[in-house]
Amino acid sequence: MHRYKLTIEYEGTNFVGWQRQENGLSIQQSIEESIKKLSSETTTIFGAGRTDSGVHAKGQVAHFELLKKISLDNIRDGLNQYLQPLPISILNVEEVDGNFHARFSAKLRNYEYSIVNRRPPLTFNKNQAWGVFKKLNIKDMKEAALKFIGKHDFNAFRSIDCQASSSEKTIQSCNVEKDSANIKIYVSAKSFLHSQVRIIVGTLVDVGKEKLKPSDIKEIIKNRDRSKAGATAPAHGLYLVRIEY
Amino acid sequence: MHRYKLTIEYEGTNFVGWQRQENGLSIQQSIEESIKKLSSETTTIFGAGRTDSGVHAKGQVAHFELLKKISLDNIRDGLNQYLQPLPISILNVEEVDGNFHARFSAKLRNYEYSIVNRRPPLTFNKNQAWGVFKKLNIKDMKEAALKFIGKHDFNAFRSIDCQASSSEKTIQSCNVEKDSANIKIYVSAKSFLHSQVRIIVGTLVDVGKEKLKPSDIKEIIKNRDRSKAGATAPAHGLYLVRIEY
Repeated sequence: MHRYKLTIEYEGTNFVGWQRQENGLSIQQSIEESIKKLSSETTTIFGAGRTDSGVHAKGQVAHFELLKKISLDNIRDGLNQYLQPLPISILNVEEVDGNFHARFSAKLRNYEYSIVNRRPPLTFNKNQAWGVFKKLNIKDMKEAALKFIGKHDFNAFRSIDCQASSSEKTIQSCNVEKDSANIKIYVSAKSFLHSQVRIIVGTLVDVGKEKLKPSDIKEIIKNRDRSKAGATAPAHGLYLVRIEY
Repeated sequence: MHRYKLTIEYEGTNFVGWQRQENGLSIQQSIEESIKKLSSETTTIFGAGRTDSGVHAKGQVAHFELLKKISLDNIRDGLNQYLQPLPISILNVEEVDGNFHARFSAKLRNYEYSIVNRRPPLTFNKNQAWGVFKKLNIKDMKEAALKFIGKHDFNAFRSIDCQASSSEKTIQSCNVEKDSANIKIYVSAKSFLHSQVRIIVGTLVDVGKEKLKPSDIKEIIKNRDRSKAGATAPAHGLYLVRIEY
């Protein structure tokens, strides 16, 4: 068997998310069908992160196995051809050994959240950033972001659908950058709870709107109460950017 | 009468272009209808540049007149509300005197053309950049761009639909910048011939592909023959960025 690692970019707006589902087209299904067309083999691909519907990726990683050996260039170009006109693009293909697992071997997952802080509505990036009208206090957001770093019980920062047995996670880095109206929030961890990044972002935006103070974050984490954290930020501002192994 | 100047951003993909036409929705018509809803007055707006279908704007300028005086904030927010969900956004509104004309008072029009030079197909910006697969020689493109600057007869660089009586134009600046796979071509002039920027870009891409040499540009301009210049680059990579008065 040959095991291949894909690096994948996609615009998640019109998909049900990464994972195969009954109710619509997923990224996973789209790529699996393209592999079938290319190789005539039926295979399952394993992704590093199960992005929700509307969430985008600049560097999702997945692996799969084939009996056939196909050149890496032919896999990349062939899959890209069969994927057209879907907004999914294979950026890179590598052959990896049988121990590599896109999900379980991942050491760090890097997410980016894009906000445009302005009064006029968005045009180009309507589905690719969260338009926040109210002027945000970036200094407070930067200060609040630091409070998430480290090992904490993030029960207040997971969706009610989250099935993880433990809500303890270690945030490696969390920071806020601003370039004129464009605000980016970068969050990295080995793994995340369901909707954790989006709830962190929603809470940071509440800090930016001065509904919360940076010093409130510690208390919200400590209380473990989802209702005390901010709303879940919209899916369409979130990007899975890079997986480190 | 009160004369107002609008600065406008739009994603041009699904419009027939700036100008009103029989065969579909234009930016002009969309804004005029919103002004009517806001003010109950029927008016015509005059744009600084008539962008073609698919061409975008980050800073188109237009003016119009109303009998009523409406506060600038109310014009911006009201038009933006009536324009929803179209990807047109009023960024700024100013009141100007009766001598100001968006088209005729313009001193400099700045365009930007966006190319993504990579083998994998585009996803996020499929309709907002030109994906060029073949690796482009940027050094040659930069050198060729300089040859367009100055006053020349640009007959070889206008579409057959161009109705201008003279094909003489003065290019103020023309340069090529690269940041990893993203290439931007910036072109500025007081005014342009029809499709001039897109034919300049198509010709620069031919230079990048080494089908043409930078030293060929002078000859192509001199010969005045449209068939010797490059193809017209796709509309969806072009942005009207800023009008200077």
